[in-house]
Amino acid sequence: METLKKPQPFPCIEASDVSLRTSNPIREVVDRIDTSQMNKNKPMIPLSIGDPTVFGNLNACEETIQAVVEVTKSCQANGYPKAVGMIEARAAIAEEFTVPNCSVTPADVILTSGCSHALQLCLEVLLEPGKNILIPNPGFPLYKTICDYIGAEARGYKLSPERQWQIDLQHLRSLIDSNTRAILVNNPSNPCGAVYPKSHLCEILEIAEETKLPIIADEIYHEIVFPGNESIPIASLTNVVPVLSVGGLAKRFLVPGWRLGWIVIYDHHNAFSQVREGLERLSTLIMGANSLIQAALPKIIKNVPHSWHLSVLRNLHLQANYSYERLSHMMGLEPIMPQGSMYIMVGIQVTKFRDIESDIDFCQKLLNEESVFVLPGQCFGASNYFRIVFCAPVDKLAEAYNRMSDFCRRHIIS
Amino acid sequence: METLKKPQPFPCIEASDVSLRTSNPIREVVDRIDTSQMNKNKPMIPLSIGDPTVFGNLNACEETIQAVVEVTKSCQANGYPKAVGMIEARAAIAEEFTVPNCSVTPADVILTSGCSHALQLCLEVLLEPGKNILIPNPGFPLYKTICDYIGAEARGYKLSPERQWQIDLQHLRSLIDSNTRAILVNNPSNPCGAVYPKSHLCEILEIAEETKLPIIADEIYHEIVFPGNESIPIASLTNVVPVLSVGGLAKRFLVPGWRLGWIVIYDHHNAFSQVREGLERLSTLIMGANSLIQAALPKIIKNVPHSWHLSVLRNLHLQANYSYERLSHMMGLEPIMPQGSMYIMVGIQVTKFRDIESDIDFCQKLLNEESVFVLPGQCFGASNYFRIVFCAPVDKLAEAYNRMSDFCRRHIIS
Repeated sequence: METLKKPQPFPCIEASDVSLRTSNPIREVVDRIDTSQMNKNKPMIPLSIGDPTVFGNLNACEETIQAVVEVTKSCQANGYPKAVGMIEARAAIAEEFTVPNCSVTPADVILTSGCSHALQLCLEVLLEPGKNILIPNPGFPLYKTICDYIGAEARGYKLSPERQWQIDLQHLRSLIDSNTRAILVNNPSNPCGAVYPKSHLCEILEIAEETKLPIIADEIYHEIVFPGNESIPIASLTNVVPVLSVGGLAKRFLVPGWRLGWIVIYDHHNAFSQVREGLERLSTLIMGANSLIQAALPKIIKNVPHSWHLSVLRNLHLQANYSYERLSHMMGLEPIMPQGSMYIMVGIQVTKFRDIESDIDFCQKLLNEESVFVLPGQCFGASNYFRIVFCAPVDKLAEAYNRMSDFCRRHIIS
Repeated sequence: METLKKPQPFPCIEASDVSLRTSNPIREVVDRIDTSQMNKNKPMIPLSIGDPTVFGNLNACEETIQAVVEVTKSCQANGYPKAVGMIEARAAIAEEFTVPNCSVTPADVILTSGCSHALQLCLEVLLEPGKNILIPNPGFPLYKTICDYIGAEARGYKLSPERQWQIDLQHLRSLIDSNTRAILVNNPSNPCGAVYPKSHLCEILEIAEETKLPIIADEIYHEIVFPGNESIPIASLTNVVPVLSVGGLAKRFLVPGWRLGWIVIYDHHNAFSQVREGLERLSTLIMGANSLIQAALPKIIKNVPHSWHLSVLRNLHLQANYSYERLSHMMGLEPIMPQGSMYIMVGIQVTKFRDIESDIDFCQKLLNEESVFVLPGQCFGASNYFRIVFCAPVDKLAEAYNRMSDFCRRHIIS
């Protein structure tokens, strides 16, 4: 009698190169931080994630919620939108983002599954393996993640902390070669909180014009700027340089989980005709953003009162000022006052500390001893800095800064 | 005095190869169809798009809507979910899709921005340029679109219309070579409406086991099967072959625009450890599905009554039967009765018509003369067929079939 064959197990199925080389620097650095040693006597205060909804002090506007509730109840927006998005929603974005130098129509707008998806499409349409793009350093790590995924090179141009994180234009210029396909500009910026003045944006545009490089403008923090600063879409300052501007509801409307982003194509002389086709083709792969949010978008943009935006900004500004003030008085730290966004970068004078080797070491020990979690600058390509997300309410920030101050006092060389 | 320099326009910015080779066969074929010649005296009846919400007869369940309204009003789910999805939602899917042979946990579930995104991740994690995957022919065009995007080869294995679209296993076997990375099985299927019996699924699994190829199971039409047929997840029939099953809310809950899909990883002996890592890495690129729908998902799955699903199925079955019956009596047409899904494939006996050259020609003339829009089989790799989406209510179908019948009578060789 034949014995039953035991099923032979499968060998390990190989994953593709592209999947394994796709890596998020935040995750890689954070994974090296051991949370098991956290001080269990102190409740954790996470000032690490760029999600304004974490603490419950910054909530979406009632009108935003109402718009989605109405659309959902209507049962009229459950079907497939076009891959590039619903026309009404694209029209609302076009109206909002038309600039003096370049009016945009719904045909110039592509809706995406969050701003991350918008960035992915823009990088995919411009880059190929062997090509490169210039990105800010320090900068948002997803740029490099996407470039790794594509197999293209992300070249970091230096930002100068001593000039409020403006771009070192000479360095940027030195990185351009015949394989460079675009310059990515993030303004207002993450992690630096920089907001560039018109003059600086014009300097960047001059280089783009001269080298015939298009610009990808990551403007997800558009309008999140503090008094004395102006939020200027870079496309409004040129009538020559083609610009792909990406944005989304996430930060300005405090709904990052809703995954509604967009690309606005600013094209003066049809330089983007092929790029536009490429973007449209790429958009058919996953068919874009949730239909309920798309259908609600025109109402959200129209109905959320200016006063609500101002009040969010007032809170953020207060929290930014408070953070700067407290951090300025801590030994061994050098915060750089942000001009917008939700982030403050803090320099660590490593040599002034007894036993802090690096930003990662600082963040690990701060977590272990004080249960305050901030991200090491290395996540963003900036050694000896750490980033604080100042979205928490002031009382929570106060507690975090009290602990941080104690921590610095304990570790500073006296 | 120097005259002002006129700005020099930019040269055309090149789009990447990958973006331009990403093409949707439906769009390409449909774009060749000229809608301007449509008969303006007859209102258009679109039986072309696989969107069950188009006609208003198939609506999402009240409990589905209510779950999203509640989550939205709570303002508790506006933040970023994890890239792989919220744990509660993944747990609900894991519970729903655990099968006798392979229990799954939340760690085996990745939520995605629609089932298209799930397919993209599965193909990206298994394929590379130079590798190939076996896909059904006729089949859903997105498989090839994604393969083109990746730069991998999609090899179509034949389905046999005379055996209710079962797989020609000999042909499938003949396509496998050392560069084959997986077999994609779509069951219940689009565009054929086939539902495979257990015996046939076991035959497919035998080939997979023998050749050590994992299976991607597109099971988006899971449970949408007519009486006498059974919806069997292929993973339930093996304790050896690793399976990535993709699905979503789109069809079963009648909310395709909501873009909530998932991957369930069925892995018996850790064959997918690397694939799992690759999927998780790829999921960080766009951060998955809308948070409101994710948060509502457990309630949707739990609260939508079985009776509602049954009533949707009853309607679909009625419409399928009616379609088959009417089409069977039309000269020159040979419908194949579907066993599930929302589609019926109809053969065109081209030689019996006076002036119909091809399926594209049939669809173009039907649209011109009768304003009935159906998709040519060439969209799915099947010449001399067309696909009807039978989601429309019976009175609308009746009108469409009356016109189609007149059309056939006019064009048939008498």
